Amino acid sequence: MAVGEYPFPEMYPVAGVKLTAVCGGIKYANRKDVVLFELAEGASVAGVFTRNAFCAAPVTVCREHLAAAPIRYLVINSGNANACTGEQGLRDARATCEEIARLTGVKAEQVLPFSTGVIGEPLPVKKIIAALPEALATASEQGWADAGAGIMTTDTRPKGFSAQIEHQGKMITVNGIAKGAGMIKPNMATMLGYIATDAKIAQPLLQQLAREAADKSFNRITIDGDTSTNDSCILIASGKAEAPEITEVSGELYEKIRTTIFAAYTHLAKSIVSDGEGATKFVTIAVSGGANRNECLDVAYAVAHSPLIKTALFASDPNWGRIVAAIGYAGINDLDATKVRVHLNDVLIVENGGRAASYTEEQGQQVMSGAEITISINLARGDFNETVWTTDLSYEYVRINADYRS
Amino acid sequence: MAVGEYPFPEMYPVAGVKLTAVCGGIKYANRKDVVLFELAEGASVAGVFTRNAFCAAPVTVCREHLAAAPIRYLVINSGNANACTGEQGLRDARATCEEIARLTGVKAEQVLPFSTGVIGEPLPVKKIIAALPEALATASEQGWADAGAGIMTTDTRPKGFSAQIEHQGKMITVNGIAKGAGMIKPNMATMLGYIATDAKIAQPLLQQLAREAADKSFNRITIDGDTSTNDSCILIASGKAEAPEITEVSGELYEKIRTTIFAAYTHLAKSIVSDGEGATKFVTIAVSGGANRNECLDVAYAVAHSPLIKTALFASDPNWGRIVAAIGYAGINDLDATKVRVHLNDVLIVENGGRAASYTEEQGQQVMSGAEITISINLARGDFNETVWTTDLSYEYVRINADYRS
Repeated sequence: MAVGEYPFPEMYPVAGVKLTAVCGGIKYANRKDVVLFELAEGASVAGVFTRNAFCAAPVTVCREHLAAAPIRYLVINSGNANACTGEQGLRDARATCEEIARLTGVKAEQVLPFSTGVIGEPLPVKKIIAALPEALATASEQGWADAGAGIMTTDTRPKGFSAQIEHQGKMITVNGIAKGAGMIKPNMATMLGYIATDAKIAQPLLQQLAREAADKSFNRITIDGDTSTNDSCILIASGKAEAPEITEVSGELYEKIRTTIFAAYTHLAKSIVSDGEGATKFVTIAVSGGANRNECLDVAYAVAHSPLIKTALFASDPNWGRIVAAIGYAGINDLDATKVRVHLNDVLIVENGGRAASYTEEQGQQVMSGAEITISINLARGDFNETVWTTDLSYEYVRINADYRS
Repeated sequence: MAVGEYPFPEMYPVAGVKLTAVCGGIKYANRKDVVLFELAEGASVAGVFTRNAFCAAPVTVCREHLAAAPIRYLVINSGNANACTGEQGLRDARATCEEIARLTGVKAEQVLPFSTGVIGEPLPVKKIIAALPEALATASEQGWADAGAGIMTTDTRPKGFSAQIEHQGKMITVNGIAKGAGMIKPNMATMLGYIATDAKIAQPLLQQLAREAADKSFNRITIDGDTSTNDSCILIASGKAEAPEITEVSGELYEKIRTTIFAAYTHLAKSIVSDGEGATKFVTIAVSGGANRNECLDVAYAVAHSPLIKTALFASDPNWGRIVAAIGYAGINDLDATKVRVHLNDVLIVENGGRAASYTEEQGQQVMSGAEITISINLARGDFNETVWTTDLSYEYVRINADYRS
């Protein structure tokens, strides 16, 4: 199941970024499950990774390699997460990088490895290595759709973004692909994201953009509250566009690039939610009037993670009582419940500590019967606001996650 | 569905505590949904209530009345929570107390009101009031079983505890009933609990016992992570037993009473989990080796609330990768993942940052196929430990909560 319209777009090529997906036979036969990115010399690469203490082996290796040398290759396998695999997992992730180094002449530190899939099974590293020659032979600037499909696990559809911006007669492209359907929560999800532009952006500035964009997108989505061991989001700037290099955080070109990169991250993040495991609703939770950012997020996540609210959403039941209960236990000690106002889309449902006088069940029912629902909560305590995106909790979510390993 | 054996016991009478359940027609016809407790003069009453900012009207009134006057009556309705009902809800809760005062001659402040059921609907206060004369006429020391059934909502079975202790040839009884199946989480649940003894215990000491016992029982259970607006747990000491009054927190009699009261709370709390909405597993999460109590609880609740772990439990799938992922994101910043050890019952599943070398899938499968499972997590950081109890997440949970209002 999936909600709303997030078709995989026609992808412009990004100069200096070649990619492909080939069959490695990691979990299923004849599934393109090994993806390779080949970056032009001089590309800048920035990354944001999971904060899970049990981070997966490839995340450890990515962090090391990003700090060590300019990145030329990314290799991603789906079907196995190489997580909680101890020392052997680290050796396997390194072996993949070393094989690409051997085949291409770059250093192993110039390769970033990624894995997504089941946790705790040994990585079938020989299968990945066996697939690398074909991957290197087939990488091209036309490979985005294959790569977008190749990184999928329980995703029902690939997620992509592609846009071009014009600056003084020169075109700049921003592309992105992402995966991740369950185990989605703040501080990155079972989520892989790859955003690439041909703009030229210095690495420290690119890292700052990668962090800010992830914080407002991938770190604001939640499906089941679980933060994965493998979440990684990579931002690539190949530098092959003809537009001038961006070296500071101001100016028209910087603003255009920043806006488009943020749009890519946000679109991909929302695509992931819309394809949340078993999702039948796409839910925006917009909290305003907070005394600070954290309390807005606390309330938003209390609502987003409540199984009672999520099952009511699944049932298209405007059960506003469960929403106010979640607001009430979000941990704001001195919250004045009588001042809180809650809207479902544009229907006022809660004020003065209870159901709004103007509210009718029919109004709520009408909103809830739609596939896209916004729950707006005004705490009436200050000027801060935050938005998170989530899904409902369906039979299908239980089925997918009860069956996933079988 | 419900897990394990928690039969409603034969209940000893508690001298000085009469109770009954009568039909009020609040949500269903011919359902005994109005419960009344009548306490002997001189009884001590202590309470612990929800910390939800949107606490229900009866909770507000209970807090006021407990501080104002010696309590003589408790009145409980199921079928409607009188929560998020604003000023009218407060008037309705008070009206119930005033009617009992009018019928019996006590003051309204000597009555505690409780409600459980759907949130946000006006309380059908006239129906409750109409049922009070019959309730007053039928209250008796034999009413425990009726009262235990009368407070149920989505519970599939009543929860009760009854025990006697002997002290210097005198018998003391401790009884308890409770309800609560969904919306169960630390800091009280959609949970009502009534524990009564005929011992004589001074009110400040009784309040301390009520708080401590709730913290180690009802505040350590979680089904869906939701804290309700109505949670209330009441401890009554009628003082009608022949044993001496308890006035200080030491001595043989105090220890006996404390142990038995704690046993009542723990038994009722575990009974609630075993009857969690859609529960097919009873899961104990025991975290040891923490540097402090809070980090033990953070890890325990991260595991207990993870929908991915709960669906794996439902599937009897020993998916230890999801368990370590949850430990990893519980928020301990400097956790050394390589030192953490995890057992399923007595099977070591995780050590050295990954699957234990000795572990086989068959061992894990054998544990998971049982209905009662203990997940033991040693953080190897210190000497603190905490235990919480929870359930799996099943299709049935989704069905119950998607259908609850229809």
